[in-house]
Amino acid sequence: MLIVMKPQASEEDIRGVCQKIESMGFRPHPMPGAQRTAVGITGNPGPLEPAEFESLPGVAEAIPVSKPYKLVSREVKSEDSLIEVGPAEGGVTIGGRELAIIAGPCAIESREQAFGTAEAVRKAGARLFRGGAFKPRTSPYSFQGLGKEGLEILAEVRREFGLMIVTETIDPENCDLVEEYADVLQVGARNMQNFSLLKRVGRSRKPVLLKRGLSATLEEFLMAAEYILSEGNYRVILCERGVRTFADHTRNTLDLSVIPAVKRLSHLPILVDPSHGTGKREKVIPLARAAVAVGADGLIVEVHPQPDRALSDGYQSLFPEQFESLMQQISAIAGVLGRTMPRTTRPASVPAQL
Amino acid sequence: MLIVMKPQASEEDIRGVCQKIESMGFRPHPMPGAQRTAVGITGNPGPLEPAEFESLPGVAEAIPVSKPYKLVSREVKSEDSLIEVGPAEGGVTIGGRELAIIAGPCAIESREQAFGTAEAVRKAGARLFRGGAFKPRTSPYSFQGLGKEGLEILAEVRREFGLMIVTETIDPENCDLVEEYADVLQVGARNMQNFSLLKRVGRSRKPVLLKRGLSATLEEFLMAAEYILSEGNYRVILCERGVRTFADHTRNTLDLSVIPAVKRLSHLPILVDPSHGTGKREKVIPLARAAVAVGADGLIVEVHPQPDRALSDGYQSLFPEQFESLMQQISAIAGVLGRTMPRTTRPASVPAQL
Amino acid sequence: MLIVMKPQASEEDIRGVCQKIESMGFRPHPMPGAQRTAVGITGNPGPLEPAEFESLPGVAEAIPVSKPYKLVSREVKSEDSLIEVGPAEGGVTIGGRELAIIAGPCAIESREQAFGTAEAVRKAGARLFRGGAFKPRTSPYSFQGLGKEGLEILAEVRREFGLMIVTETIDPENCDLVEEYADVLQVGARNMQNFSLLKRVGRSRKPVLLKRGLSATLEEFLMAAEYILSEGNYRVILCERGVRTFADHTRNTLDLSVIPAVKRLSHLPILVDPSHGTGKREKVIPLARAAVAVGADGLIVEVHPQPDRALSDGYQSLFPEQFESLMQQISAIAGVLGRTMPRTTRPASVPAQL
Amino acid sequence: MLIVMKPQASEEDIRGVCQKIESMGFRPHPMPGAQRTAVGITGNPGPLEPAEFESLPGVAEAIPVSKPYKLVSREVKSEDSLIEVGPAEGGVTIGGRELAIIAGPCAIESREQAFGTAEAVRKAGARLFRGGAFKPRTSPYSFQGLGKEGLEILAEVRREFGLMIVTETIDPENCDLVEEYADVLQVGARNMQNFSLLKRVGRSRKPVLLKRGLSATLEEFLMAAEYILSEGNYRVILCERGVRTFADHTRNTLDLSVIPAVKRLSHLPILVDPSHGTGKREKVIPLARAAVAVGADGLIVEVHPQPDRALSDGYQSLFPEQFESLMQQISAIAGVLGRTMPRTTRPASVPAQL
Repeated sequence: MLIVMKPQASEEDIRGVCQKIESMGFRPHPMPGAQRTAVGITGNPGPLEPAEFESLPGVAEAIPVSKPYKLVSREVKSEDSLIEVGPAEGGVTIGGRELAIIAGPCAIESREQAFGTAEAVRKAGARLFRGGAFKPRTSPYSFQGLGKEGLEILAEVRREFGLMIVTETIDPENCDLVEEYADVLQVGARNMQNFSLLKRVGRSRKPVLLKRGLSATLEEFLMAAEYILSEGNYRVILCERGVRTFADHTRNTLDLSVIPAVKRLSHLPILVDPSHGTGKREKVIPLARAAVAVGADGLIVEVHPQPDRALSDGYQSLFPEQFESLMQQISAIAGVLGRTMPRTTRPASVPAQL
Repeated sequence: MLIVMKPQASEEDIRGVCQKIESMGFRPHPMPGAQRTAVGITGNPGPLEPAEFESLPGVAEAIPVSKPYKLVSREVKSEDSLIEVGPAEGGVTIGGRELAIIAGPCAIESREQAFGTAEAVRKAGARLFRGGAFKPRTSPYSFQGLGKEGLEILAEVRREFGLMIVTETIDPENCDLVEEYADVLQVGARNMQNFSLLKRVGRSRKPVLLKRGLSATLEEFLMAAEYILSEGNYRVILCERGVRTFADHTRNTLDLSVIPAVKRLSHLPILVDPSHGTGKREKVIPLARAAVAVGADGLIVEVHPQPDRALSDGYQSLFPEQFESLMQQISAIAGVLGRTMPRTTRPASVPAQL
Repeated sequence: MLIVMKPQASEEDIRGVCQKIESMGFRPHPMPGAQRTAVGITGNPGPLEPAEFESLPGVAEAIPVSKPYKLVSREVKSEDSLIEVGPAEGGVTIGGRELAIIAGPCAIESREQAFGTAEAVRKAGARLFRGGAFKPRTSPYSFQGLGKEGLEILAEVRREFGLMIVTETIDPENCDLVEEYADVLQVGARNMQNFSLLKRVGRSRKPVLLKRGLSATLEEFLMAAEYILSEGNYRVILCERGVRTFADHTRNTLDLSVIPAVKRLSHLPILVDPSHGTGKREKVIPLARAAVAVGADGLIVEVHPQPDRALSDGYQSLFPEQFESLMQQISAIAGVLGRTMPRTTRPASVPAQL
Repeated sequence: MLIVMKPQASEEDIRGVCQKIESMGFRPHPMPGAQRTAVGITGNPGPLEPAEFESLPGVAEAIPVSKPYKLVSREVKSEDSLIEVGPAEGGVTIGGRELAIIAGPCAIESREQAFGTAEAVRKAGARLFRGGAFKPRTSPYSFQGLGKEGLEILAEVRREFGLMIVTETIDPENCDLVEEYADVLQVGARNMQNFSLLKRVGRSRKPVLLKRGLSATLEEFLMAAEYILSEGNYRVILCERGVRTFADHTRNTLDLSVIPAVKRLSHLPILVDPSHGTGKREKVIPLARAAVAVGADGLIVEVHPQPDRALSDGYQSLFPEQFESLMQQISAIAGVLGRTMPRTTRPASVPAQL
């Protein structure tokens, strides 16, 4: 059920609706839009009676929601969500005209490696820096990340280079630590249905980058995001990173058709990860171009100063000069779609929003 | 690296090898076999020198392990592992001649529902009872289990019916609670690569039932088990429950070929879940027969007294009388393979083993 | 539309219904059953009016068919089809209690190889012999079969060993030649949607073994069979041979759940090919056991006297002594399901049927 | 084996090499390049001795080919192949700077429908017209195309609108008829491994558009093309049209990563079919943009004047005005990649080539 408020409804009207919902034992989710506010309801075991709400002051109408996901749905919020990352001054907005570019190594290996990469990707125009401190690895004997030391290096990268930090959190307890350092909490593909972790990041005040699972359907992907929103964190950024198929010429099969499919059903922004999506360095740039052309809101790309010496994913990491070339190539395509490349400062005119 | 001890090696010899390994900063895993003990080494960043170990007292030879998984490998332990579940007196052994049959509802819904099912499945011959208290559900708005109340009902089932309890744990913190109640900790398919959870159950003293992920390769499946063993818990039971493919006549595609493939590479037992593996009640019995015929060590089956009223997975749960029929049908096939159906008490002759 | 005749309807009544259908420009398919005859109609562009038929003499009722496939559907024919192969005297019936066992090499390589294999598989109890004379191969540079010479060797095998011959036809023109030699025309997985070939074998008087395509859904599989029946050849035997998935521990993923799914929807018999289904010799026997246990009507298995020297598929061919062991193992399981192993002669009591 | 001629080698030298190859019982494939000619050898059962060829006049070197495919490989021909379609005067070249745009209805339904579509797509800039006269359909009861009447309508479309005709051939015999009418013979996805058909079109003098099979690996796709080249027809245009996966938000999963993968391994051009690749009208334009951005040599798109009344694939056909919009959008992206949109006449400067 979605309660749509009248354009002229007051703050008090909205509060009244929320209290009514809470008094019924459910959870209200007020979502301010450009024209008017809507209030989503979750926690109800079955359909509710519209009349119960339509008589409240300031309510325009009460609409049943037909999808299994509610809060992520365009039925509930028709405009694109703009997700603010970083400080009010100097942060970036994901989901608007400007492409979001997140770049950096798979894992943080040393201060030197992180700084070298950060300098290169900032110079090429990235505003966000990726790098894992806690790495989920298929083998228990593989390098699992530097842990807290890695987070501290990331904090230094932010200070030194003004880049915002995107880094992975791997379980609810670990999230307590990671959210102290990260600007964006990443939930990895293998954790897309780790519901305990989804609920935990849903209670965080940091935006969340949610990667699509290796064999997740579109509905499961949106439901995973719904877990986060239903806990009260509406700042979710989706990310396509390739799915598992029979095809063996790439590590995963990048499913770019999911971008327009998400845009049709949900108001959340969606990025593409052509590095994991292909697993092969020479395919990253062509697929990055395609991702921008298909309408993605940005990219997350692995860059390493010496890919051959990387402790993980070296064969899919770009050399810094390749990343620079990627930025130039997508810049031209962005223009065709009426989008812009990342700027140094967020313009004052973009309104703060859900 | 695997250190194989001489048949006549003493306890002290084994301790000596372990101390040597620890002194090098690595982790020893002594694994007693029928003839002699082997000591696995984990934590070493690269290959070790066999000569360093072959001169120690009681050592027969030091063998490099060629697979990415070590402790789960037949290279390290050639005989089948027998996993003891429940009390020394009155428990069951999984992986031997006797088939393991785990049956019960998807989720514990009430004391009445649990008791009704327990009575039926015990009567039909099951020795282990399944039932979720914490349910990972695709939607945040679906029934998520009774939680602690469910665990308490499960404890009552054990007391009343003498069934051993298999129930799912969903995150490391939750595991503290679940392991107080469960005889076997279940790790669900969606958590197969939740490495924090794998490490946590690896530190538990309860056996673990590890379900194959929806798109897990055999190697990834064995590596997930390796995470558990590498933390010191060698009592891991694998479970095939269907993988995700294009095929749409079943909910998942049950991959029975993984049973002989696991048996070839690993000493761990493997069960089959024909309920999730097909998602359709009328296919559970035929596929259960096939699972026993292909060589699985047992089954885990959903049974519900009133499937049409089940809060989850009702369409794939058997009626109690169907479960009885299933038991009769597999009993005949078990005989063909030289296996036996569950007995009431574990015979004294089965030696306690890894 | 299906016209169900009364039990006491005369031959003339049936002829009258067929003439009525033809006069409307459509095609009648009279299908005699144990109790009464039904007449299927194909070629009609849309739904027909039941009343047009229900007034004809001998008609019990006219039933619209709800599936996209008609003639293969249980809606049209509720009893299992029994497919007669080979001569009236000394042939076999597929789809009844007796399991059908087809065995032989992937390709016919020489008279010596064919005779050696034929002798071994006959001795072990097979009644049907497989062997390709025309081989569809992924590479144009691989051995493509002996062609007509291979067919002549197959004819000799039939004469010498009394085995019925199952061999592949690869295009409509080639079918003219192959049907002179074969007892059963095989349509390979890669040709499952070669509709020109399906129509051609649909006009043949020989039974057809139709293999499921590598990525065919159940509906597509049944529709491919429908192409054959709609041309007038009702003797179709389906065959599951593994589908293509991400899993890499076998060459294909054998989908045994399709057996009960086919049985539910169609009256046609279905076999399993564990050789192509796994692509690995050591997995053929366990999966053959599972196939019989799940309810398949028989098996098609690759056997070669010297698998290591085979010109194709050697790594998945059984040694003759392994085939003998397979026959013993499935014999015991067949008994459990109330089925019998192949006998030397078809008993006179089995009635000739559709 | 590949025989590379010296730049100054004479026609007679090349003929000498071919005669030598033929005298050994193999087949020579002379392939003129921009700098010099290479001669591929097929039909040899095993490796050949380089020295046998290196002593012949005009031979630079003899190089063993390491891939299972030879003639389609970049090892054999390093420059991109330019495929000429249509008359010398007024035809188009596929694989060069100019994008190839093939547009039209799924099936030819009537002269009126074909002409209406042809006028619209020509106006929007397409130079090639698609439309099926023989349609492979999943159901025997679906519309199978107008047959020869459809081909005659296509011939009229060519005469009236100057568009070149791309149409499907469904079996070797049918090819005799279709090649009289078509400028490009299309081999459909379901026939990608119909080897009889591949050999037949390999003996045609018309270029071939080969669609990737629903579950074809890259190697199988290239091997299918190799079948055509090995028969002497070097004018093969590949086409990605989506593969079958678990994903259900599109009819197929368009695998754009195969474009750079093909470009790396083969000299053949490759197009993308976003209509079948997605199966949903609203996704065709975004994926068409992505296809051009990733580096495809062109598109094949379904357009229908009244999609809702189409006899097949209506839900994935664009309205004419949508196609016009598609052309404008990809035009801008083509510019970014240094490519041009189709022109009315082929410039004289493009040299005729393999």
